[in-house]
Amino acid sequence: MTTDALVVFTPTGKRGRFPVGTPILTAARQLGVDLDSVCGGRGICSKCQITPSYGEFAKHGVTVSEDALSAWNAVEQRYKDKRGLIDGRRLGCQATVQGDVVIDVPPESQVHKQVVRKRAEARDITMNPSTRLFYVEVEQPDMHKPSGDMERLITALEEQWQIKGVKTDLHILQQLQPVLRKGDWKVTVAVHLGDDTHPPKIMHIWPGYYDGTVYGLAVDLGSTTIAAHLCDLKTGEVVASSGVMNPQIRFGEDLMSRVSYAMMNSGGDQEMTAAVREGMNALFTQIATEAEIDKALIVDAVFVCNPVMHHLFLGIDPFELGQAPFALATSNAMSLRAVELDLNIHPAARVYLLPCIAGHVGADAAAVALSEAPDKSEDLVLVVDVGTNAEILLGNKDKVLACSSPTGPAFEGAQISSGQRAAPGAIERVEINPETKEPRFQVIGSDLWSDEEGFDLSIATTGITGICGSGIIEALAEMRMAGLLDASGLIGSAEQTGTTRCIQDGRTHSYVLWDGSANGEPVITVTNGDVRAIQMAKAALYSGARLLMDKLEVDKVDRVVLAGAFGAHISAKHAMVLGMIPDCTLEKVTSAGNAAGTGARIALLNTDARSEIEETVRQIEKIETAVEARFQEHFVNASAMPNAVDPFPILNSLVDLPDVSFNSGGGDATEGSGRRRRRRRG
Amino acid sequence: MTTDALVVFTPTGKRGRFPVGTPILTAARQLGVDLDSVCGGRGICSKCQITPSYGEFAKHGVTVSEDALSAWNAVEQRYKDKRGLIDGRRLGCQATVQGDVVIDVPPESQVHKQVVRKRAEARDITMNPSTRLFYVEVEQPDMHKPSGDMERLITALEEQWQIKGVKTDLHILQQLQPVLRKGDWKVTVAVHLGDDTHPPKIMHIWPGYYDGTVYGLAVDLGSTTIAAHLCDLKTGEVVASSGVMNPQIRFGEDLMSRVSYAMMNSGGDQEMTAAVREGMNALFTQIATEAEIDKALIVDAVFVCNPVMHHLFLGIDPFELGQAPFALATSNAMSLRAVELDLNIHPAARVYLLPCIAGHVGADAAAVALSEAPDKSEDLVLVVDVGTNAEILLGNKDKVLACSSPTGPAFEGAQISSGQRAAPGAIERVEINPETKEPRFQVIGSDLWSDEEGFDLSIATTGITGICGSGIIEALAEMRMAGLLDASGLIGSAEQTGTTRCIQDGRTHSYVLWDGSANGEPVITVTNGDVRAIQMAKAALYSGARLLMDKLEVDKVDRVVLAGAFGAHISAKHAMVLGMIPDCTLEKVTSAGNAAGTGARIALLNTDARSEIEETVRQIEKIETAVEARFQEHFVNASAMPNAVDPFPILNSLVDLPDVSFNSGGGDATEGSGRRRRRRRG
Repeated sequence: MTTDALVVFTPTGKRGRFPVGTPILTAARQLGVDLDSVCGGRGICSKCQITPSYGEFAKHGVTVSEDALSAWNAVEQRYKDKRGLIDGRRLGCQATVQGDVVIDVPPESQVHKQVVRKRAEARDITMNPSTRLFYVEVEQPDMHKPSGDMERLITALEEQWQIKGVKTDLHILQQLQPVLRKGDWKVTVAVHLGDDTHPPKIMHIWPGYYDGTVYGLAVDLGSTTIAAHLCDLKTGEVVASSGVMNPQIRFGEDLMSRVSYAMMNSGGDQEMTAAVREGMNALFTQIATEAEIDKALIVDAVFVCNPVMHHLFLGIDPFELGQAPFALATSNAMSLRAVELDLNIHPAARVYLLPCIAGHVGADAAAVALSEAPDKSEDLVLVVDVGTNAEILLGNKDKVLACSSPTGPAFEGAQISSGQRAAPGAIERVEINPETKEPRFQVIGSDLWSDEEGFDLSIATTGITGICGSGIIEALAEMRMAGLLDASGLIGSAEQTGTTRCIQDGRTHSYVLWDGSANGEPVITVTNGDVRAIQMAKAALYSGARLLMDKLEVDKVDRVVLAGAFGAHISAKHAMVLGMIPDCTLEKVTSAGNAAGTGARIALLNTDARSEIEETVRQIEKIETAVEARFQEHFVNASAMPNAVDPFPILNSLVDLPDVSFNSGGGDATEGSGRRRRRRRG
Repeated sequence: MTTDALVVFTPTGKRGRFPVGTPILTAARQLGVDLDSVCGGRGICSKCQITPSYGEFAKHGVTVSEDALSAWNAVEQRYKDKRGLIDGRRLGCQATVQGDVVIDVPPESQVHKQVVRKRAEARDITMNPSTRLFYVEVEQPDMHKPSGDMERLITALEEQWQIKGVKTDLHILQQLQPVLRKGDWKVTVAVHLGDDTHPPKIMHIWPGYYDGTVYGLAVDLGSTTIAAHLCDLKTGEVVASSGVMNPQIRFGEDLMSRVSYAMMNSGGDQEMTAAVREGMNALFTQIATEAEIDKALIVDAVFVCNPVMHHLFLGIDPFELGQAPFALATSNAMSLRAVELDLNIHPAARVYLLPCIAGHVGADAAAVALSEAPDKSEDLVLVVDVGTNAEILLGNKDKVLACSSPTGPAFEGAQISSGQRAAPGAIERVEINPETKEPRFQVIGSDLWSDEEGFDLSIATTGITGICGSGIIEALAEMRMAGLLDASGLIGSAEQTGTTRCIQDGRTHSYVLWDGSANGEPVITVTNGDVRAIQMAKAALYSGARLLMDKLEVDKVDRVVLAGAFGAHISAKHAMVLGMIPDCTLEKVTSAGNAAGTGARIALLNTDARSEIEETVRQIEKIETAVEARFQEHFVNASAMPNAVDPFPILNSLVDLPDVSFNSGGGDATEGSGRRRRRRRG
């Protein structure tokens, strides 16, 4: 007993007594401390770096003397000379216990390290990748005990790494024999560790010790763009990101036009399948080139997408998704091999598709759920992913509901007279002075407001070309707050509003946001048609959310999370003025950015998250808006801005919405003009 | 209790009491009686036909009255009118229990029926195919409970057939939705039932009830020919058999020349892989055409082959098999998908390769072991598969040993002066009159002996073209018995033997078996070179067997099984005279025909046999002849006919081998000439 020493690991606090001479790596393994190693303690890989601490540790009840670890040895010195080693670091497989000691395992030496996410409310990602590297020494063949080289490699993995029942594809068998001999029976293998239904599988093999990493792709396959993040499966780091237009756009801008294309054209679905796979392969080539890596090192990929994209990507005719009852061919998560999808990454690479929630609520919504985790929220959170369809999740740790609502493309700038995609030159922020009714705005590409000095110069190259989705939301909300737009969605005339910016436009009125005609540039107006388009979109979005609130029997939510690129740029106050989202404390309305893409990245880096989201999706209650009688009622009420019946007490405590009405049929128009009434708070 | 009736099933004797009104199929299932059904008792498939027996059954203690079953019903009548039904048969799902009854389940209604093998010592094959058909009714999609069509199909399989965790490939998903709707949510699916490492998998789907079957291939991939049996996976019946030359022959006649080709030519292994797969695809197309079936209905395939063929088929360079230590890339059984091997059967068809026993003892030898089951034998059996290499198994239920011995192609007629493949015109049987030294023979294509009336006419079309493997064995053995050939392998001169058929041929002598020169046809002689070639081959074969006997510490075997096409035609007595095989009671020397092919068929029809042979192969002790010192000693002794040291007591009790010696250097030649001595029996 006197030869045993106490070893305390931080940050876990795990501790145990070990005989003098025990390597730190061995001690860590026996205690279940997460200390990495690829070479299995042979002093080759240096992944097991640790930092011993010396002195008094009252907290642990230990005093660590200077000679608590064995002296610096030749293997460590060689490694340091060749590769460098941070001062104070030791190799855990070389340093042995000599006395009581406190050992810190730095994050980079942990297999299951945390990848930090920036947002306060977002959970960090715990690394648990599908595929890891293992260095093994394989027994040589013996005529007296004939067994295949593969069987001896499998035995080595089992004996040296406790990985049982490893399988392999033919491509590994085809290169195994020369690689084993080139490495003198020492090889590094990348092993996909498998899951409930798949055994572990050898993905790659290198002669000797391979001092590199393997990669995975997190892919957000959108109707418009395909975005991919290339991640290091060792560190979790995003090493390159890139996006391309979805080549299916030539078959139809939106989902339903693509479904129609498949219905109207024999083989149309196959054309679109080929197109999206080609686009994806171009993207993967591009991203690998950018990261300067061999595409064959990409051994895992996670895809998120809506149901139509999901089916077309898999080569399934989306016909049934175009009509009630919107039956998915398959709703479960899918685990495939890259070669089955003609993807040009590692041929045996695994491809994981998150489960679909329902016929209109796809794997992208599941990915949002994984990223934003409403099912783990203490408070009631509404998560909205705004795109051509809005996917809506509402719930907390007790229950989560989901639905989809057909918002149409207005939020993306389509169907808007001066609308455009969010690109340089587009008006993205708007303010209207409630007294003068004069606007000022910001344009993508410039940080200056249009009334600030230097603005003209700052937009000289881009010009002012149109208004994007977030811009139109702000414009409408500002018009509403300035008394230029009434609750029903009518723009007032110049007489009614007192500004010549309100101009006659056929039978309705428009508001001139910017007149560039003097310089031969566009006149950018907000027309009553624009208001109608946004009204339809926001009513669809709100009534979907409201329907879920009905189902949960609540009339307010604690938080709102806006996901999607659009959500990232939207102003919470303006959205609420329009009644896009339910009434909520402004600080509780946050943006999650591309939450679907983040969900894909989580599922890529942490395989536990896959079964987790599969279980979550099974638990989510799906609501089909199309067959819910109250949806229509909510929709009609939500056409008003903010709403015909739902009170918005928090909003009303923050802003005064003029009680104007510009209905030309009634006498209220002039009466209401310019009149402002302070609503009761409450 | 009074409403329960006793149901006794034959042939199993399983019995139980059931409430009146219970369908026979239900009773059978509850008792675990093997009664087939594809439609699950819906009166569609008629697979559950049974035969009730009436009257007194003292053995079972039952008296069955005429009304023991419910009356013939409309479903049964409709089936009988449409498809016919054997008199006395009922549909097990329609007929219900009304009183005590004895029910016979005919073989064709059993899933696990026995497929009878003709040979007395061979075990029948119990049907347990990988893939079976199931008719299911699938729940229709419901917007309120969204789930994929595939998930509902999987649920139906679980609820209606207790098949859990079914998976599928993309190609099924791609056709699922229209098929489900075409069949009005009733479909028949072919399910591969999986194994330890593979979950069950849907292979095929048909709308409504599919009244057909699915098929499997048992393929014997030989160096010279590829032979395939197409089997009905329902009945086990061989519906077509066919063979083609192995196209690899153009790269080298024998295995080692193909290994050399791969070594000498960059990409040579890939050329040979492509060639053999192309040949196989041509064969599969041919066999499917012959059987008039769609190749996509071939959902399973089992392959047996030697290690070099195994590696080349899988696309693995056989380089290592050409040199010690003869390391296999993999020795375990392989389970692959047809698409991975570019095979043109069902794309998701499973391909099973039996395990290899050692670097020189392949999956073909494993298949022979499966067919001949030495590991289940009570007596000690020697199984010899004679080809270019002889694979040799020796053992009984306690232990089995295996080795390979390089016999070369002499047994196949190669290296023989007048040798040819076994084809019409080849001499296959020979007798030599010990007194006159005159021969008579039979030729392939005729049943007459050459001295019988009508022989000339019967061979008019073929002529007498050469001598095949079994012919040369008989010729040599007859020459040995007639005193024309001595134990050392020398043919005597005309003077020594007293016949002018022994002619001078350079420095040695030849025996003229047939002189067709008068008609411009060949002169067929047995030369001393022919004797040497057969001596080498038979010495290799015998010394391999002898080595295994040493290892088991025995000097005799109870039985000898000759496998392979050559083994099917060989005469046991003649083989023993030459000392090809150990001394053994003649009736205990039997032919197993193409045992490797049979082993493949067993593994195809009974998936249990796969794990069984995998375990057997693990238990087999492998002996590498090349490194065994005693092999050379045995080889030298076995060069004599029958053997320089091993006594052949049983053989000697049957035949008198003249104690001649034609060594021209000694004085024994004339002395021994014509002298016959009766050896002691013993």
